[in-house]
Amino acid sequence: MNVKDFKMFSEISETPEVFSRLINSKAQFQLAAEKIKARDITNVIILARGTSDNAGHYLKFLIEVKLGLPVGLASPSSVSIYGAKVDFKNTLVIALSQSGRSPDLITFASAAREGGALLIAMTNNSDSPLAKAGDIHIDLSAGPEVAVAATKSYSAELLASLLLVDNWMGNKEEVRAHLVDSSRECIANLSQVDSFANSLDSGREIVVIGRGYSYANAKELALKIQETSYIPVQGMSSADYQHGPIATLNKNSQVIVLSPSGMPKKALEDSIARIRQSGPELIWLGSNQLALREEKVIKGSTQASEEESTIIDAALIQYLTLRFAIKNGFNPDSPAGLSKVTETL
Amino acid sequence: MNVKDFKMFSEISETPEVFSRLINSKAQFQLAAEKIKARDITNVIILARGTSDNAGHYLKFLIEVKLGLPVGLASPSSVSIYGAKVDFKNTLVIALSQSGRSPDLITFASAAREGGALLIAMTNNSDSPLAKAGDIHIDLSAGPEVAVAATKSYSAELLASLLLVDNWMGNKEEVRAHLVDSSRECIANLSQVDSFANSLDSGREIVVIGRGYSYANAKELALKIQETSYIPVQGMSSADYQHGPIATLNKNSQVIVLSPSGMPKKALEDSIARIRQSGPELIWLGSNQLALREEKVIKGSTQASEEESTIIDAALIQYLTLRFAIKNGFNPDSPAGLSKVTETL
Repeated sequence: MNVKDFKMFSEISETPEVFSRLINSKAQFQLAAEKIKARDITNVIILARGTSDNAGHYLKFLIEVKLGLPVGLASPSSVSIYGAKVDFKNTLVIALSQSGRSPDLITFASAAREGGALLIAMTNNSDSPLAKAGDIHIDLSAGPEVAVAATKSYSAELLASLLLVDNWMGNKEEVRAHLVDSSRECIANLSQVDSFANSLDSGREIVVIGRGYSYANAKELALKIQETSYIPVQGMSSADYQHGPIATLNKNSQVIVLSPSGMPKKALEDSIARIRQSGPELIWLGSNQLALREEKVIKGSTQASEEESTIIDAALIQYLTLRFAIKNGFNPDSPAGLSKVTETL
Repeated sequence: MNVKDFKMFSEISETPEVFSRLINSKAQFQLAAEKIKARDITNVIILARGTSDNAGHYLKFLIEVKLGLPVGLASPSSVSIYGAKVDFKNTLVIALSQSGRSPDLITFASAAREGGALLIAMTNNSDSPLAKAGDIHIDLSAGPEVAVAATKSYSAELLASLLLVDNWMGNKEEVRAHLVDSSRECIANLSQVDSFANSLDSGREIVVIGRGYSYANAKELALKIQETSYIPVQGMSSADYQHGPIATLNKNSQVIVLSPSGMPKKALEDSIARIRQSGPELIWLGSNQLALREEKVIKGSTQASEEESTIIDAALIQYLTLRFAIKNGFNPDSPAGLSKVTETL
């Protein structure tokens, strides 16, 4: 079976069109921004699971850096299992979900609104319970996604996050239109990833490191490999990695480091020096600014802004996952033991 | 070398005395509660790394359930690397750190105060920069901790979190005095863990599952095994586990499930049913309420309240780690590649 025969491949390939639709759907972002500004919002809670939770880390960091507001990720069970009564009068809750159907998210979202929150739901299904529970629904416009491993809907969540924050800050979202071409270029060059995917070894430890904006993609690459190649992989911030887990590192480890174009060198410099002391194989994805000549580099977007290059590079991590699963003899479209919609209580 | 010769063992054994000191240091918790109530706090940010970050998940959940406020975990790099200007006028920042010395935490804490936050620092070193940066310092009273893998200071962070929330809610903290005896009983029975530790196999996947209050201990057990036995282990919420990583599960996997006494059955029921479908080995730590007769159970605290049993059971996960490292031929007091104080930028 050729790589192009997989649904996961065709869905990754649709990313530029998804971006185009999303950038053109200005009204929904403007409306969301107006609703936010009409309220006295002092803090933000992001509500999500799985892949959407990873996208939520990008949105979290974006709001923290650009707007300086405190942001947390919801623990849905605090409400769905432990029955917390929440006081969210000054809280903006942003729910991210491809399907909009996991019961714990719906329960938490309803409780948050009852507790006074402004609720924005970003989903890929405007008929879903979560979409309908929100004060505002932002349609991810990703179109039907059939492969179990989410791809274009994740990229859409990243871009929708950026467009929401742009509008909230009062920036005109037109400035992001170039991302459609940038995504097209990325998709046209996916085959550069083939040799890297084929040299990855599922029998040796794989760990994925990011920081700041790229932490989301690090977690997402780790999750995607777990879902489609059935091996445990952790995605971590380079700082958290140093606070303990780095002890597992050895000469046999494969460390995939995400260094999107525009990332400040000091975000990773110290950690990389420490990682190199253990002699693992380093594989870079993004820019080569910190790579040694002999280290492999999967070339990512060359956008000057890290928040943009992170969004474009998401397709590379998805394609890497797809290729790696095929190499390992698995069908990434239908991973064993997973279904497209996961419902947790 | 006998297990009792390790510093890690003697430090775990000091837990009851640490609890006694902490419960008797009422003034610092009362003062913190007064300062909080004097402010218009709408949300909380927890600032921590590594083991303290795991304790932070317990504190997060406690505040979410008991006080209903939105809580987030800080991304220190948003300030230390990306230079965010934060607007924390209505935010309580609680910094947790054994050493009080990691530069990124200190930078974030200072920026948070400049941005208007009320800052409570909980550290085990009242002379540390972080302790001095806070509006209030809560001394963890754990005494000197020499083994690189933190033990009694983690348990102290859990109990200090509970005492802080007790005081904030206006509960009298005297009601926690029984935890000293409960901890003594746990320490006296640590040897029940020996056979479990000896049957754990470092060559097969190990994953740790918790939820709600026990999510912190799940992450901490995973971190501790990584630090002292050098194998990658993930600690996850049972819900997050179902949203993807469960795909890696197979007959060879060893799943350690934390089910502290008092945990609602429905917190884990669905997930366990799904986990059992893959036929892994299940090892329970806490209560046996969901265990099958043939599954192993490490007996935890029998406190009726889950927030208490979680604190007591922390010593069991620490001792399990210690025993497992010894079995694997390592010295848990001085893990290769780690130092007691990790400083990240």
